[in-house]
Amino acid sequence: MTSMTDTALVKHFTDVRERTLKLIQPLETEDFIIQSHPDVSPPKWHIAHTTWFFERMILKEFKADYEEFNPVFDFLFNSYYNTIGPYQPRHQRGVLSRPTVEEVISYRASVNEHVLRLLSESREPEIQQEIEQLVNLGLQHEQQHQELILMDVKYNFFVNPLFPTYTKREELPAVGRKESNFIPFEGGLVEIGHNGEGFSFDNERPRHKVWLEPFKLAAKPVTNGEYLAFIEDGGYEKSEYWLSDGWNVVKDNGWKAPLYWMKDEQGNWNIFTLSGIQELHTEEPVSHVSFYEADAFSRWKGKRLPTEAEWEYASQGIAIQGNTMEKEVYHPMPAEGDAQAPLLKMFGDVWEWTASAYSPYPRSKPLEGALGEYNAKFMSNQMVLRGGSCATPASHIRETYRNFFPPDKRWQFGGFRLAEDRE
Amino acid sequence: MTSMTDTALVKHFTDVRERTLKLIQPLETEDFIIQSHPDVSPPKWHIAHTTWFFERMILKEFKADYEEFNPVFDFLFNSYYNTIGPYQPRHQRGVLSRPTVEEVISYRASVNEHVLRLLSESREPEIQQEIEQLVNLGLQHEQQHQELILMDVKYNFFVNPLFPTYTKREELPAVGRKESNFIPFEGGLVEIGHNGEGFSFDNERPRHKVWLEPFKLAAKPVTNGEYLAFIEDGGYEKSEYWLSDGWNVVKDNGWKAPLYWMKDEQGNWNIFTLSGIQELHTEEPVSHVSFYEADAFSRWKGKRLPTEAEWEYASQGIAIQGNTMEKEVYHPMPAEGDAQAPLLKMFGDVWEWTASAYSPYPRSKPLEGALGEYNAKFMSNQMVLRGGSCATPASHIRETYRNFFPPDKRWQFGGFRLAEDRE
Amino acid sequence: MTSMTDTALVKHFTDVRERTLKLIQPLETEDFIIQSHPDVSPPKWHIAHTTWFFERMILKEFKADYEEFNPVFDFLFNSYYNTIGPYQPRHQRGVLSRPTVEEVISYRASVNEHVLRLLSESREPEIQQEIEQLVNLGLQHEQQHQELILMDVKYNFFVNPLFPTYTKREELPAVGRKESNFIPFEGGLVEIGHNGEGFSFDNERPRHKVWLEPFKLAAKPVTNGEYLAFIEDGGYEKSEYWLSDGWNVVKDNGWKAPLYWMKDEQGNWNIFTLSGIQELHTEEPVSHVSFYEADAFSRWKGKRLPTEAEWEYASQGIAIQGNTMEKEVYHPMPAEGDAQAPLLKMFGDVWEWTASAYSPYPRSKPLEGALGEYNAKFMSNQMVLRGGSCATPASHIRETYRNFFPPDKRWQFGGFRLAEDRE
Amino acid sequence: MTSMTDTALVKHFTDVRERTLKLIQPLETEDFIIQSHPDVSPPKWHIAHTTWFFERMILKEFKADYEEFNPVFDFLFNSYYNTIGPYQPRHQRGVLSRPTVEEVISYRASVNEHVLRLLSESREPEIQQEIEQLVNLGLQHEQQHQELILMDVKYNFFVNPLFPTYTKREELPAVGRKESNFIPFEGGLVEIGHNGEGFSFDNERPRHKVWLEPFKLAAKPVTNGEYLAFIEDGGYEKSEYWLSDGWNVVKDNGWKAPLYWMKDEQGNWNIFTLSGIQELHTEEPVSHVSFYEADAFSRWKGKRLPTEAEWEYASQGIAIQGNTMEKEVYHPMPAEGDAQAPLLKMFGDVWEWTASAYSPYPRSKPLEGALGEYNAKFMSNQMVLRGGSCATPASHIRETYRNFFPPDKRWQFGGFRLAEDRE
Repeated sequence: MTSMTDTALVKHFTDVRERTLKLIQPLETEDFIIQSHPDVSPPKWHIAHTTWFFERMILKEFKADYEEFNPVFDFLFNSYYNTIGPYQPRHQRGVLSRPTVEEVISYRASVNEHVLRLLSESREPEIQQEIEQLVNLGLQHEQQHQELILMDVKYNFFVNPLFPTYTKREELPAVGRKESNFIPFEGGLVEIGHNGEGFSFDNERPRHKVWLEPFKLAAKPVTNGEYLAFIEDGGYEKSEYWLSDGWNVVKDNGWKAPLYWMKDEQGNWNIFTLSGIQELHTEEPVSHVSFYEADAFSRWKGKRLPTEAEWEYASQGIAIQGNTMEKEVYHPMPAEGDAQAPLLKMFGDVWEWTASAYSPYPRSKPLEGALGEYNAKFMSNQMVLRGGSCATPASHIRETYRNFFPPDKRWQFGGFRLAEDRE
Repeated sequence: MTSMTDTALVKHFTDVRERTLKLIQPLETEDFIIQSHPDVSPPKWHIAHTTWFFERMILKEFKADYEEFNPVFDFLFNSYYNTIGPYQPRHQRGVLSRPTVEEVISYRASVNEHVLRLLSESREPEIQQEIEQLVNLGLQHEQQHQELILMDVKYNFFVNPLFPTYTKREELPAVGRKESNFIPFEGGLVEIGHNGEGFSFDNERPRHKVWLEPFKLAAKPVTNGEYLAFIEDGGYEKSEYWLSDGWNVVKDNGWKAPLYWMKDEQGNWNIFTLSGIQELHTEEPVSHVSFYEADAFSRWKGKRLPTEAEWEYASQGIAIQGNTMEKEVYHPMPAEGDAQAPLLKMFGDVWEWTASAYSPYPRSKPLEGALGEYNAKFMSNQMVLRGGSCATPASHIRETYRNFFPPDKRWQFGGFRLAEDRE
Repeated sequence: MTSMTDTALVKHFTDVRERTLKLIQPLETEDFIIQSHPDVSPPKWHIAHTTWFFERMILKEFKADYEEFNPVFDFLFNSYYNTIGPYQPRHQRGVLSRPTVEEVISYRASVNEHVLRLLSESREPEIQQEIEQLVNLGLQHEQQHQELILMDVKYNFFVNPLFPTYTKREELPAVGRKESNFIPFEGGLVEIGHNGEGFSFDNERPRHKVWLEPFKLAAKPVTNGEYLAFIEDGGYEKSEYWLSDGWNVVKDNGWKAPLYWMKDEQGNWNIFTLSGIQELHTEEPVSHVSFYEADAFSRWKGKRLPTEAEWEYASQGIAIQGNTMEKEVYHPMPAEGDAQAPLLKMFGDVWEWTASAYSPYPRSKPLEGALGEYNAKFMSNQMVLRGGSCATPASHIRETYRNFFPPDKRWQFGGFRLAEDRE
Repeated sequence: MTSMTDTALVKHFTDVRERTLKLIQPLETEDFIIQSHPDVSPPKWHIAHTTWFFERMILKEFKADYEEFNPVFDFLFNSYYNTIGPYQPRHQRGVLSRPTVEEVISYRASVNEHVLRLLSESREPEIQQEIEQLVNLGLQHEQQHQELILMDVKYNFFVNPLFPTYTKREELPAVGRKESNFIPFEGGLVEIGHNGEGFSFDNERPRHKVWLEPFKLAAKPVTNGEYLAFIEDGGYEKSEYWLSDGWNVVKDNGWKAPLYWMKDEQGNWNIFTLSGIQELHTEEPVSHVSFYEADAFSRWKGKRLPTEAEWEYASQGIAIQGNTMEKEVYHPMPAEGDAQAPLLKMFGDVWEWTASAYSPYPRSKPLEGALGEYNAKFMSNQMVLRGGSCATPASHIRETYRNFFPPDKRWQFGGFRLAEDRE
């Protein structure tokens, strides 16, 4: 038993679990219940599901005589683990008023107490390590849902004509717009993927060789101003920039701009944010675009999206800091003018779409059992995003981290950065 | 100014508005928000919409300098009045967490106060009469939504695997089952429809002549036990009993029994009620069947449904009393064995499907303006039901009252009574 | 055995069956196969199904040792008789290239021969009468499908950008437009329905009493010119004229005019006909409108549609002649200016929507067995039309005939005539 | 002008165009018209579209004063080239009876004549080369549609309860089943992609480096017998083998076996083929499986699918011969027992699903103009297949050829071969 580890883990556990409670403080009871789109989940579901994850994956497996809080919760709060059993259909999470928010908070408290007690008990080192790994996984899982809570509350508030505000925000300092330059990379036979030290998801492993042709990567993400030029040039009306599937999505949904962009009666663009409706700032990174839009913009610009291998290789060695969840801005911010680093904003602000379909790494091995469903089964029809956003906890971001969404999804904080071939 | 009338109206206003608040007392805040089916509405919406009806149809029309509580409410709480303006789509009523329940209750209080003040002011008798008629209409409207609240809460609770309970109920006394007999009527040239004394909806007027062939009407509604025999005889598997549209609905939805019937693992039937899951009582009137099911049962039995003219003619002179909302049972009850009246349970317990499509009476005139949309525009693809249910306020029931639903709807307390031709 | 009847029946059989072949003469083999909308059927299916009707309802029932032409045809060419067995889904009739048209024509010839042989055999009078009634039913059935062939070919040709022509037509004589006047009727206790002499469908029987208030009926159907005024007055943009269901249909389908109306680049209206695209003639009866459009026009005009009882009562004694299928114009024609009859065009030209939902007559009895499915099972969500059209065989029209379509259907030759209450 | 090339090209042009006519010889006129699924096209459309491709891409661009055969054909027979103009929606190709098959054959003859005349004219070498490249592209395009004709006819015939036969086929010789072995490959830094000599599509270029870990590839594709074991082990009922999207497809469509597998009443498996219904041969390669099924089988077997780079690298140097379209078997055949080659059936028989999403090669450049839409715009939500099938012309197959389909499609002749990591 390494009590040092334990102490750090207990603190991490407490911190992450409390952070979730802090995130939901601005919400009214009513806000916890709604699901305004099949892709979003009610906040109540998130706080119950993250708790169920600890109960089901750890307490029920390792705690002798553990009695579940409520046997129906296995049905209500299992997200998608078919090997565990049937579950409430995802698009029907918003039809459930019970358990109440208060009951779910009690559920959290009860599970927290049991997990902490479990961690404090002594046992064989191997088992203890296994438990600690699972607790870490549960916390990484909870951090994913912290970001989802912010994404989902934003969407739920947006569809309400009253446009509720999640948090007040100081007016951001105006920052002079900076032209983006491209940083050259040699490429060659490089290595990407997680080397196994510290936490990583199964989909980031193993570290492996990839051949890269010489390329260049933009110093910073595409901004609202640059994206506006695409719109004003008729980008959403010209099929030649678009993938076939993307063009169908544009036509079927009447897309004319990123999600949350709103044109007022005078023709001025505003953006809905977690701090309400705000003027469009041209120098902020564009956000809430789909892969299809990122891809179409790139083609219009005569550039392309980077592959995830290019992105990761370019990011190697860059410090993980930036506009992350802890800043509590919950909105991408303009790049500062005179930064020293050649690549700006690789971490935080917006997840960056890559040109890479989400697929298994060579020789990868999904986890055993139900947890094997965590990542591997989603490896079709999705694209990889990298880098973390203004809604991602800093401790959740890694240069090897592979986020993924279907190419038409826009409610995540998703932007992009251009790349091009080097002659 | 007839202050007598005023006093009675003020009392009626206060009673009805308070009854709504009494109905929602058992609900948790979370219960107010959900819409588990496009046909149902969140309870919060009902309590706001009934208030909006008074504000929009009366205060804004008759109160000088009235300032609306919140200008967005015209969009949020207009149900379907196209002539007033655009509104939140019906199937999207459940995506709105704000305004909160508390704010909506304040809205009620504010509008109540203004309406009472308006009623107390003196003005020209004609205007006063118009206002009083509209207040009466608003209260009849609110009573319709009282029944809808009960219907919708029942449905919302049913889709939740926790099966919440709205109200506790004493075990009902077991009552010996009584065979139904048929009561003969002569028919001929009869009159139906409202004669204009007291309140009526525009769709009940004018009183008019109808020719009826001699017929018989069952002394009481079809019971669960009788309906069970239809099920056990393969009624849901034999197309020959069903209208073509009805058969498609049965196949598409996999119907095998009325809504809320649940077969347990031992093969016993239970029913979900507002008091939770209960054993099926064979002598209770069957409820929550669609027109298609009522019609199919009738054909299986070699009988038919009565027309609305037959039903109304037969009901003339019967006292309006029975198992209505005020009994707070919220569930149909068995017929008492030795009742004197030849026709039992014409009012209360279950709405009774008729064979009549919902269409305008000869020489009928819808109300002017937006209120013309109240009834008339729904006169296609709907069938008439008569008599009121265990969820209908007694003061809302009339022998001329025409309730209507599309033939496939089952979440209302809808049963039926058989008829046959007299030789 | 009454050989007179036989001879007439044999001639009628031969005439009707040959008329179908005449109707399909203008078609290419390719035209027989397509189904451009779930509501229409491929012409090949019509000529096979009408044959199957004789084979299945008569030959298989009454002809000893009859061997069916092809056992799979029971599946392929049963339309909707669930009591007979499963069948090719209606919307999938157009995915079948085999049997070829040639094979289906052979099938017709074979069944014709067997039917004629059956009719020529001597047997007990009762059986013989039953067979003759069924042959008559089969011929009335075939006449319905003759009209359907014209309706369906018209629709199939319309969706083809080449706009094929079914038949050439002489330019119609220009006819001076005549204002419509209203003819008064007393009403009272009248009788409608078929009295049982000669052929009738089960849905037309029995003759029965109906009470009618005094009313007036327009002398002729509403014309294209009158309907155009409704369009130009914004009829399709103003919700107040429309039933709620109808308004949804208008919005969902973007209706701006009747089916087959086409606005050219200069803003002139043309109409697609079975003789190709033609200029809109303002004095022709408007056709290819839904019940919703007929109803909305009436409300806009301050009138109403007649009930089917009013229509039938008014038509009693009028000779059945007019612009019917035999004229081979296949398009409604203007009313002649100086006609003697007070009511013009009651029969032929366009089916006329009534205000009556399609429901069973008092004391009606559907046929026994599979044929009971012929009419009765469609008695929900449909409206009655009366009078026959330019695509209806004259010998198929009766003043008691009840045609019916769902209120949103427009591909039949459906127009309407106004009515109003008499003061 | 290199007349040698011309002569070969003229012969190739004539051969390919005639082969299409040979392929449609067994069809009845009716068979040309139907579209039994949105994914399939009527054979008439294929023979018109391939002709339109030559007319639109070559004759209209290079032939002075060329008058198009019919101006509406640009709308009717454009497949998906948005930059050319609007077109008949894909799922509506089967609603068009006109132009007739005969007219389309005339269209072919006319365009053929013009193309041959164009090729025979002398002009500047650069332009001549451009034309020849486009003619070659048009022929490769036509060969793709030859395979599509066979795929689509097969599907159209399968949905017809008469199960028509496209071609008679001799009973295949029974062949002893051979266990599959795995062939080891070193991998390392290899090259794949087309080097630009001879014809290739833009999506196969440029040749580029890829790093491969050591791997093994199965000597032959998975057989019906092996796949049957997966079915019998409950493969279609166990979610753990399936990608999440795949599992949804399985449940939504009720898949229990590959497309065209039919279980008879005795529980024996048969397969529908272009030669009718035949007994399942266990030693034939399994065909008509989706990517999801191939992937699930691999996981069940403890193996995986090869990447397209592994597949292409392993295929380098293997002669392109096998069971291709010219054999006129149109069905995959068992592997011969004692073949010398270590890898059997890499070309012909069945297209082989790979683990690779369809995405652009490094530094790839789509064609200019409308032809840039040929391949590049489909690079999302599709998986790569390699090797050609029994319905692919031999001259159309290359080791670098990238076929692609969405992961749920099964109507192509799609099978797969297993791979595994080398320790």
